[in-house]
Amino acid sequence: MNTQELLASVQLVIFDFDGVFTDNTVYLTQDGIESVRCWRSDGLGLALLRGAGVKSVIISTETNPVVSRRAEKLKMPYKQGVEDKAAAVLESCKEFDILPEYTMFVGNDINDIPAFRVVGIPVAVADAYPETVPHVLFRTKNQVGSERCVRFVIWSSMRRKS
Amino acid sequence: MNTQELLASVQLVIFDFDGVFTDNTVYLTQDGIESVRCWRSDGLGLALLRGAGVKSVIISTETNPVVSRRAEKLKMPYKQGVEDKAAAVLESCKEFDILPEYTMFVGNDINDIPAFRVVGIPVAVADAYPETVPHVLFRTKNQVGSERCVRFVIWSSMRRKS
Amino acid sequence: MNTQELLASVQLVIFDFDGVFTDNTVYLTQDGIESVRCWRSDGLGLALLRGAGVKSVIISTETNPVVSRRAEKLKMPYKQGVEDKAAAVLESCKEFDILPEYTMFVGNDINDIPAFRVVGIPVAVADAYPETVPHVLFRTKNQVGSERCVRFVIWSSMRRKS
Amino acid sequence: MNTQELLASVQLVIFDFDGVFTDNTVYLTQDGIESVRCWRSDGLGLALLRGAGVKSVIISTETNPVVSRRAEKLKMPYKQGVEDKAAAVLESCKEFDILPEYTMFVGNDINDIPAFRVVGIPVAVADAYPETVPHVLFRTKNQVGSERCVRFVIWSSMRRKS
Repeated sequence: MNTQELLASVQLVIFDFDGVFTDNTVYLTQDGIESVRCWRSDGLGLALLRGAGVKSVIISTETNPVVSRRAEKLKMPYKQGVEDKAAAVLESCKEFDILPEYTMFVGNDINDIPAFRVVGIPVAVADAYPETVPHVLFRTKNQVGSERCVRFVIWSSMRRKS
Repeated sequence: MNTQELLASVQLVIFDFDGVFTDNTVYLTQDGIESVRCWRSDGLGLALLRGAGVKSVIISTETNPVVSRRAEKLKMPYKQGVEDKAAAVLESCKEFDILPEYTMFVGNDINDIPAFRVVGIPVAVADAYPETVPHVLFRTKNQVGSERCVRFVIWSSMRRKS
Repeated sequence: MNTQELLASVQLVIFDFDGVFTDNTVYLTQDGIESVRCWRSDGLGLALLRGAGVKSVIISTETNPVVSRRAEKLKMPYKQGVEDKAAAVLESCKEFDILPEYTMFVGNDINDIPAFRVVGIPVAVADAYPETVPHVLFRTKNQVGSERCVRFVIWSSMRRKS
Repeated sequence: MNTQELLASVQLVIFDFDGVFTDNTVYLTQDGIESVRCWRSDGLGLALLRGAGVKSVIISTETNPVVSRRAEKLKMPYKQGVEDKAAAVLESCKEFDILPEYTMFVGNDINDIPAFRVVGIPVAVADAYPETVPHVLFRTKNQVGSERCVRFVIWSSMRRKS
């Protein structure tokens, strides 16, 4: 398969949270309340993805209410407090009854490498850690802004449609 | 009409909210409270716009108190939870009794395209999605900072005055 | 006087707040609570300024508790809700018994122009509005980061000491 | 010793907080609540550092709950309200029973210079104040993003292991 065919074959997209839906920073108040910064346009992107018949899920190492809040807003299923991301990815594939080779995993850090290895279409965000590069097939184009992550996936689903 | 004449003809400016008055991100606390980041200088810009006799209104897809809070601070009317932006734009034109051809719509994303199509002066912000470009007459100059949006409008209203 | 002599003559520094102590944005929660983003290192800068015997004060158009909170943290006097900045600058000069010609005003926007005009050493921050440029003698060097504003003043006070 | 040997000799890393674990800004609400912005990936970095047998501690001039909140999340010991950083550094060396020559201090501002002077491996972050440069042996590579600080230390500990 060439690049276009690979992207067109995606049936499930599994997203890491921090650094993928966020800019990988955390805002911390003196009262200990954490916040993250997300992109408004991801909602529209995920709606388009759903419209194209592609499933999606969030997998996160952190156990933090911000993940569930954001996932609920985006109307996406999610798993938190995941220690073994590769296992969680394979588990999600089973739950959706989709083969790992038709699954995209989008991550950014070295602890995503085991998950990159078990899917057919591993994708890193533009500002992912350099150590991840040898383990992915694609990287998203923009370090900042709305095209960082989800829009890349839309682009692939659009291609799939045409 | 040339560019200058077009800009000088603006009688009503309709603004999208996210990505226009904000940097298109949303800050989310673990308690589910959303925040947005706006430019302080927009207040001064809109005051100048009012001084030039140009009407303005905010139209937003999201239904979120941040839109109303910001609009109230900027002393602007607003519509929230708008599904069909083109219809909402035409409705605003009627309410202000101003023809769509003398109306500017400022947006940033693909769901703004129908609204761009029904006004005389469609404008996209500097970091709008590439898909919007074929549908606008102008783009604002700066991706970040205060000149991103409202100042562009001031510039056009200033020209109009002279 | 040459540049160095001018900077060395400063006895009072009057600061605008938004866009000078902040990056000119405002963070707004859905509950209507405003936040601003300031530089931690300004505290050290102002302590050095005080050590050099230079007085300082904040003048702000906005009436917002963030100004008073920040000013108190920085141990600086402040005036809020200022409509006429030039008048407020001259009033501050009188209160400190320092001539306007030995006073620096640091601002960023077109409503600072009248204040720039009444002091001896008008200074704009690096990302000030272009309209302000003809009215200032100096601009700070960096658009972002800690040297944006206060460190410029330290630099001038250091020169003064030597 | 050459560079690699120096980095490999590190047994204790002492971190300044503001400008090292944060981007050196502070977010201030109108209610006077302060927040800072940290990098999510620092947790993973510090876990790797611990795994390599390197001790770490945070020393901060500010007395602010954000420091303790972040340190607790990162499972690190910390000292706050430190007036004399050099003395606090030497005190930490004693507490960990590690010689200052095997200690790295990571800082960013002029008040870190005395601490840089008493350790064997002084390190400044990429956007540290220029005045600090003559006093450090290394600077981290990136002004923004996740590799700003802690990853530099990981890199050194990785070398040490091999």
